[in-house]
Amino acid sequence: MIDCGEGTQMQMQRYKFSYRKLSHVFISHLHGDHYLGLMGMISTFNLFNRKDPLYVFGPEALKDVLDLHLKVSDVHLNYDLIFYPLLKKEVIYEDEKLTVSCFPLKHRIPTWGFLFKEKENSERNLNKEFIEKFRPGIEQIHKIKYGADFQAQEGAILKNEDITYFPKSLSYAYCCDTLYDEELIPEIRGVDLLYHEATFGNKNEAIAGNKFHSTAAQAATLAAKAGAGKLLLGHFSARYIDREELLDEARYVFPNSELSKEGETYTIV
Amino acid sequence: MIDCGEGTQMQMQRYKFSYRKLSHVFISHLHGDHYLGLMGMISTFNLFNRKDPLYVFGPEALKDVLDLHLKVSDVHLNYDLIFYPLLKKEVIYEDEKLTVSCFPLKHRIPTWGFLFKEKENSERNLNKEFIEKFRPGIEQIHKIKYGADFQAQEGAILKNEDITYFPKSLSYAYCCDTLYDEELIPEIRGVDLLYHEATFGNKNEAIAGNKFHSTAAQAATLAAKAGAGKLLLGHFSARYIDREELLDEARYVFPNSELSKEGETYTIV
Repeated sequence: MIDCGEGTQMQMQRYKFSYRKLSHVFISHLHGDHYLGLMGMISTFNLFNRKDPLYVFGPEALKDVLDLHLKVSDVHLNYDLIFYPLLKKEVIYEDEKLTVSCFPLKHRIPTWGFLFKEKENSERNLNKEFIEKFRPGIEQIHKIKYGADFQAQEGAILKNEDITYFPKSLSYAYCCDTLYDEELIPEIRGVDLLYHEATFGNKNEAIAGNKFHSTAAQAATLAAKAGAGKLLLGHFSARYIDREELLDEARYVFPNSELSKEGETYTIV
Repeated sequence: MIDCGEGTQMQMQRYKFSYRKLSHVFISHLHGDHYLGLMGMISTFNLFNRKDPLYVFGPEALKDVLDLHLKVSDVHLNYDLIFYPLLKKEVIYEDEKLTVSCFPLKHRIPTWGFLFKEKENSERNLNKEFIEKFRPGIEQIHKIKYGADFQAQEGAILKNEDITYFPKSLSYAYCCDTLYDEELIPEIRGVDLLYHEATFGNKNEAIAGNKFHSTAAQAATLAAKAGAGKLLLGHFSARYIDREELLDEARYVFPNSELSKEGETYTIV
């Protein structure tokens, strides 16, 4: 979970997102709309008798906030709440398939972006056409995935590189809230999907700057300069009831832009 | 406003309760469901450019919570947030019409009940029958309200006490969360409307005791012993999907009991 505003629990219920699936929470910064749902969610997990640890990554001061809330409510968690403070650009999570890194954004208070990156695959995928034509057995498939050639019944040998490919490793970056900042380009270069805040439109570019936010067109410019595959816009100011204006401004700069909508699911590619 | 759980802002919007009407917030205790909406609401007021002061009454430690949230979010309020710590049983608010007092409840952490009491009226109301029969002018009405007799055109003099009455001063007490506690009786004696928590039903009386909560029947017993006019039950455990069972158990002890329902308005008498 990235950020956890007030009402996150209600939204999880509404969209039937199981509490049990959640193990890691990444908090970008300590403005209320990005973290005020966290304390309630942590308490609810306790009421529901959670046993699995919960990992929380966020600005250093979030530790003080969590500690104070647990202290004043005299809640003793029956699961481990493991806090990891964001202090510098670094890899903050790694498993066999994925790394997560954080990098600083430019906002009014310390704010962090996150990059989720699948590792390069060591396992090949078999070409669909090959499978359909030759229908290899499970044991053969396993060998081919790790580099073996295939001996067809007619005697011909099909080379591994002709019947397999390495699946693309996908990446997703989250940049919210932030000024337009070209220093982010090396952090997010070539990302498949960039979520970038677009609080304002072109007409309010000056306000965006004053408030340490971005416009939709600035988000699109960053996506273009970083060579992102797709841009997902979000964090719209309440003044934009019709957000098509923001989408148009972004698409003018970077055509593969989308508006994020509450409750929707978006794919990385 | 009494207590301010997560999502209070959404509920205010939903039930079209104007932010501007809100000047005083009373927080009973620091369990999440009673105060986690406060920090967001305070920030939203700031975004909406509130100028009027906001008075917050609550357990002492709430001050630390509010201070820490304002500090970590680096929010500087453009209105006065005036905090009053609840430390002992006392009158915490008074104006020409109303007093508000707090008194300690018995819960796992420091928790406060509140009594809202209209002052005795110094102004009389005119009997409806008198107004309809004699149709006094505005100036006459004013004099009668402050004690004057009325000279009818036929010459008879109607005495003030025969044509007026003092309107009843209403009172409302809020007791949530708490064990069943007869020490509350002197605090709430004769209250017109008692809101009392009823987290559990008779079958779970032991659980209620362990968790420092009450049953519906206990709430009703307290209402009866304190001579309350009406009892409003609330704070039901999620295990009671059908709450009629709780209502039945309360009404068996104190017939004038009601279930509180989300979004409903209840009158004091």
